[in-house]
Amino acid sequence: MSLLVVGSVAFDALESPYGKVDRTLGGAATYFSVAASFFTHVNLVAVVGDDFKSFFWAGKYSENLNERITLATELNVFADFKPRLPEKYRASKYVFLANIAPGLQHDVLKQVTKRPKIAALDTMNYWIERTNEDLRETLRHVDILMINDIETRQLSNEHNLLRAARHIFKMGPSTLVVKRGEYGAMMVDARGVFCVPAFPLEEPHDPTGAGDCFAGGFMGYLASAGNKSDGSLRRAMVYGSVLGSFCVEKFGLERLRTLKRNEIHARARHFAKLTQFKL
Amino acid sequence: MSLLVVGSVAFDALESPYGKVDRTLGGAATYFSVAASFFTHVNLVAVVGDDFKSFFWAGKYSENLNERITLATELNVFADFKPRLPEKYRASKYVFLANIAPGLQHDVLKQVTKRPKIAALDTMNYWIERTNEDLRETLRHVDILMINDIETRQLSNEHNLLRAARHIFKMGPSTLVVKRGEYGAMMVDARGVFCVPAFPLEEPHDPTGAGDCFAGGFMGYLASAGNKSDGSLRRAMVYGSVLGSFCVEKFGLERLRTLKRNEIHARARHFAKLTQFKL
Repeated sequence: MSLLVVGSVAFDALESPYGKVDRTLGGAATYFSVAASFFTHVNLVAVVGDDFKSFFWAGKYSENLNERITLATELNVFADFKPRLPEKYRASKYVFLANIAPGLQHDVLKQVTKRPKIAALDTMNYWIERTNEDLRETLRHVDILMINDIETRQLSNEHNLLRAARHIFKMGPSTLVVKRGEYGAMMVDARGVFCVPAFPLEEPHDPTGAGDCFAGGFMGYLASAGNKSDGSLRRAMVYGSVLGSFCVEKFGLERLRTLKRNEIHARARHFAKLTQFKL
Repeated sequence: MSLLVVGSVAFDALESPYGKVDRTLGGAATYFSVAASFFTHVNLVAVVGDDFKSFFWAGKYSENLNERITLATELNVFADFKPRLPEKYRASKYVFLANIAPGLQHDVLKQVTKRPKIAALDTMNYWIERTNEDLRETLRHVDILMINDIETRQLSNEHNLLRAARHIFKMGPSTLVVKRGEYGAMMVDARGVFCVPAFPLEEPHDPTGAGDCFAGGFMGYLASAGNKSDGSLRRAMVYGSVLGSFCVEKFGLERLRTLKRNEIHARARHFAKLTQFKL
């Protein structure tokens, strides 16, 4: 099934205790697309400069990778990005609005001719604070909100994640997926709650893009399944976690470049072993 | 099967956004025993004063219950506690050493005549810092270490929990159970990792005793199962989480006083729904 993503394709400068790169391909839409491409064809809408002088982000991680400092953010060509969807992208059934200005996300969604089966959205504190009205308007047309726990609390003004979810359901989305880093991910909808732990890794190298790979695995799996049953959404959570876990094993996109489908399925089975029990 | 616990039986003064009590029955061994009593008979070793002026703890929780201030700790009769096990307690097959001085924990364990099937131990930063040698000596005779993530990192000097576990296995325990509060619990042993999420509650009232109820549900279930197979340990993790989740629903021991076995089993099935998926 057709999967459309709009978001950043960027250069990243990264530094963690495991390495340092000055200029490597990054951006939410890049990570998303690579992760989703293991499941389905992906239509990517983004902007790059003439000299590929695109959106630029520089960040540095602390020793335990649990803190991140943003060293630089340059919008560059992203500042004037007004995407126009090619005709054949407009019939997309699955749409992911990666973390960019909510107004832009809405513009893209309006160009999709028929309401997609699933439209999902990521955002961050910057947009929650500065463009709250735009974000709320866009959320009215979105099925799944996929953000981290801090953003969930900030957007809903509720500390408790269940109460936060009920608050967010009133804004439009019927499903909330909360990404919790080393604690895994949690999905809340009218049917209840589903939790997946993070895959235990002895030596994560670089958390950059993990959340976007999660989203890519999640949406890629759903698009390939072609339905949004409870079973499919649960499997999407697992495949999202699988792709996120591979992403952090090496620097930047390195691990995903050599990743094989059989490794993905083996790790999904490993997730089952991590969580399953018989009463 | 016989389950022995040694630890504090105390008065607690508690304050959270949901209420305040000046003097209520508390203490790790109390919570543990009540939780474990749903599964098996419990032999409790503790000390109370003549006027029941026992160990006293006063604490206050922040609005979201995620921070705790200790207002007072009075050892009282606990300072001179030298437990001597009654003859019939000495044959205990399951032993839980709740969070007290490691030297005391060791004294109790030495009085158990045959090495128990499972000896488990809880501790905290205070003992890790001040009585590290005693703690290490005691750990040599323990099968399961059951602590929170901060304590795990402090004891092992490793941030990564898998590396921390390998470090701790060298100290004696063959199983590490990490209690992670709102993120659930994780068990690591030579067979691998098993994770249980925390039960999502809209309105937790009081986290006091949740970790001890977890331990009580865990050990109580194991003692009733009478074996330490992987399946039993996984179920123990689930029943521990079930008891911990009930504990926080009301103030102090209030919820456990009205708890019924069928509620415990219903919530265990709910945990299955929270985590299970089919690939």
